[in-house]
Amino acid sequence: MMLENVVFEAIEIGQNASIVRSVKTSDVIGFAALTGDCNPIHLNEEYAKNTRFHGVVAHGMWTAAHISALIGTRLPGPGSIYLSQELKFVAPVMIGDIITTKVTVIDKDFEHGVITLDCQCTNQKKQEVVFGIATILAPKEKQYVDVNTPVIEAFDKIS
Amino acid sequence: MMLENVVFEAIEIGQNASIVRSVKTSDVIGFAALTGDCNPIHLNEEYAKNTRFHGVVAHGMWTAAHISALIGTRLPGPGSIYLSQELKFVAPVMIGDIITTKVTVIDKDFEHGVITLDCQCTNQKKQEVVFGIATILAPKEKQYVDVNTPVIEAFDKIS
Repeated sequence: MMLENVVFEAIEIGQNASIVRSVKTSDVIGFAALTGDCNPIHLNEEYAKNTRFHGVVAHGMWTAAHISALIGTRLPGPGSIYLSQELKFVAPVMIGDIITTKVTVIDKDFEHGVITLDCQCTNQKKQEVVFGIATILAPKEKQYVDVNTPVIEAFDKIS
Repeated sequence: MMLENVVFEAIEIGQNASIVRSVKTSDVIGFAALTGDCNPIHLNEEYAKNTRFHGVVAHGMWTAAHISALIGTRLPGPGSIYLSQELKFVAPVMIGDIITTKVTVIDKDFEHGVITLDCQCTNQKKQEVVFGIATILAPKEKQYVDVNTPVIEAFDKIS
């Protein structure tokens, strides 16, 4: 599969990219293993059932990482330098949820080559679960990169 | 292993928790697989060598996720509700780096039961790589939870 970036000068206000992802138990266990976040709300079904969420909740940072994934692979893609990210966690993400992550260009700083993205993760009920603003030093040079890796098959749908 | 939380009323300004973690190739590949972020800066050594970073860079959100892990397991720990996180990515994290993540209580909102944490990730050269502010709805009830899981062995040192 080829990744193609979008250089600063070609980026337009309103331009956007999105992905859809279903939340699996393996995602949550894997994220706990990679980050050490073994809070029982993520790993212990019995414990999680007795909380306000009534079930296992995915790590907020795992959901948020899909914003970063869109930035790193799609908009602007390879050559991007991630500068900052604000995140608000406003609703839980449960196993089985279908999360749509979307980033939309809302500003271009021509002096510094920096773009601002409005970032949003919503569930299958159109309820916002995570949102926030990202800033990225956008690539100046066009790149087409062959990423011969199965990891992106984790996505259910790319749009 | 037991996790013990810190309830809102017991949390003190200046209280802190930290972890030390070395960055392995498997962490980066695993994070790419879990999030779909297959940007070649993270996965392709040859490509990465020819960038400004001269080598494979870990995902910023993976580093940042250790902030979340500290919040979820230590301060305040189980029962916490993660409300928001601001992140600035100020230096790259490379394979082999040793990252210390520290969170420090800087504010308590008694009306809402919310605490504010100053969050910082630094490398073995004492260089800041990620920093930002988090807000958490702190637990009201004391919890001791047995997390019989090997995932936390991912940490090199807990302090």
